Amino acid sequence: MSIRVGIYGYGNLGRGIESAIRQNGDMELAAFFTRRDPSLLVTKSADVPVYPASEVEAHADEIDVLILCGGSATDLPVQTPALASKFCVVDSFDTHARIPEHLLAVDAAAKNGGKTALISCGWDPGMFSLNRLYAGAVLPDGKDYTFWGRGVSQGHSDAIRRIEGVLDAKQYTIPVESALESVREGNTPEFTTREKHTRECFVVAEEGADLARIESEIKEMPNYFADYDTTVHFISLPELRRDHAGIPHGGFVIRSGKTGFEREHNHVIEYSLKLDSNPEFTASVIVAYARAVVKLYREGSFGCKTVFDIPPAYLSPKSREEIIAELL
Amino acid sequence: MSIRVGIYGYGNLGRGIESAIRQNGDMELAAFFTRRDPSLLVTKSADVPVYPASEVEAHADEIDVLILCGGSATDLPVQTPALASKFCVVDSFDTHARIPEHLLAVDAAAKNGGKTALISCGWDPGMFSLNRLYAGAVLPDGKDYTFWGRGVSQGHSDAIRRIEGVLDAKQYTIPVESALESVREGNTPEFTTREKHTRECFVVAEEGADLARIESEIKEMPNYFADYDTTVHFISLPELRRDHAGIPHGGFVIRSGKTGFEREHNHVIEYSLKLDSNPEFTASVIVAYARAVVKLYREGSFGCKTVFDIPPAYLSPKSREEIIAELL
Repeated sequence: MSIRVGIYGYGNLGRGIESAIRQNGDMELAAFFTRRDPSLLVTKSADVPVYPASEVEAHADEIDVLILCGGSATDLPVQTPALASKFCVVDSFDTHARIPEHLLAVDAAAKNGGKTALISCGWDPGMFSLNRLYAGAVLPDGKDYTFWGRGVSQGHSDAIRRIEGVLDAKQYTIPVESALESVREGNTPEFTTREKHTRECFVVAEEGADLARIESEIKEMPNYFADYDTTVHFISLPELRRDHAGIPHGGFVIRSGKTGFEREHNHVIEYSLKLDSNPEFTASVIVAYARAVVKLYREGSFGCKTVFDIPPAYLSPKSREEIIAELL
Repeated sequence: MSIRVGIYGYGNLGRGIESAIRQNGDMELAAFFTRRDPSLLVTKSADVPVYPASEVEAHADEIDVLILCGGSATDLPVQTPALASKFCVVDSFDTHARIPEHLLAVDAAAKNGGKTALISCGWDPGMFSLNRLYAGAVLPDGKDYTFWGRGVSQGHSDAIRRIEGVLDAKQYTIPVESALESVREGNTPEFTTREKHTRECFVVAEEGADLARIESEIKEMPNYFADYDTTVHFISLPELRRDHAGIPHGGFVIRSGKTGFEREHNHVIEYSLKLDSNPEFTASVIVAYARAVVKLYREGSFGCKTVFDIPPAYLSPKSREEIIAELL
């Protein structure tokens, strides 16, 4: 029985989901839901209906799992709890500090409706969280580090674009290589913010703009840049479009820890991602977990889950016997 | 309520378990079981009783989980099924091809006795298996590679020691750097055995032994060395003891895969381990999973599990709320 997926919101992540479903033979795309005018939404799946988001509940019987592709700032805190009583849902809520309250709201809705939900799915939170958990459980006497990049930060790029005289911009977060190397060697240093990551900005300025002022406004921006070593490159719009059109990202979770009666042995566990497309990889993680959510729902396991709660085998389209024979 | 652990078999792995338990505040070491004369077994835990293996069943009430530290060739295929109906057990059975039949035998025993078992725990099988599963589920259009080393292979070291004229030997398995690099760049080559790993041997020969014959016997040994580029170094016994006393190991699981409507984006997921002590790290993984086994048992989830079946949160001593707040 194929898993029928609904996509709720059609931006970069929604397109990633649309693409990822095609790589999974046990899933089919059932419908798109959008807050825009459905007749104007151009998808890559001409045969799949597009409905107004406001009418989603009328299509509950056509959807096994609804993937919520909105933003964490204002969309998901409202949408996921509102929909979790009517649909099995997966979201990528990534405001780390607010995850506990989001979990409670979604859990109440899902249990109330007898549905299964998964929040905060993707790679961080998501695969990186899993690796922090596994590594910490295996090496309790240790310390872990998460580095992000090299990759595009949408939030930082947006912050630069709001500066007067800036036409467009792209910001890359870059891990400091010497910090990475130190951790890989099994050291457990305390890093300042500046010692872990640098920020590189490619900025298109309006003609005649005061470049020195723009550069110093970027470098001094609190929270976003002031605590980092930041490099600013002014380039042309054609250059930005040619060289910085992609949305690459990635990062590293590294834990080192000691074992032995005298703590005489050191071990380093490293998990890393090198991603050409952040939204497409995030979507690929979500689609694998959407399969797990449907399996849990069919078993009667309701409520809101996290990646920590889901047995790894549930992510695979293969049977348990196949997985054990081929992968263990 | 503390988790009371029994150690069944006291070699390198058993000592690793003994050490790892001390790093986990929710666990305590309850007893050792040995096939040797208990009065002659010198452990690092003078206050923990040592019993004959033959009397293990008399101590069932004192043990929450029994960790079986025997070998995969002859011990575990007999011991794990025999003990799984009386104890919750964890083993590190690592003969990949025979895992399915081992699972069936242990599952029948565990279900029969109303106990929970976990087989094939450690890092490969174990953490590497998990990473093959997660990466394959997330990037279905891809290919994964497992590299081992740089590390000591006990089986290959033993094979060299059986050659006439050899006093002692240590063999290291080493991944081929150019193969690793190719996979990391997102290529999906087909490798021959020779292209993935090399073998480096440190050999202590008897005085007057024919070194050329020993070297060619090593290099031409079928299955063990003939399919690899092998280097042989003759060294003295003091050198072997000084420079090659440790049991380091490690390795890499790397999957690269494509996403996008035109398969235009590439992604690389890499998991790696760099271990000073193979048995101590294996023991650390087993101890975390022993915790999970006891939790599953207390919930009434009986039978034989694999690492694929266990929700990650079960490995941690922390509460679900703590894990979500701190690690997600």
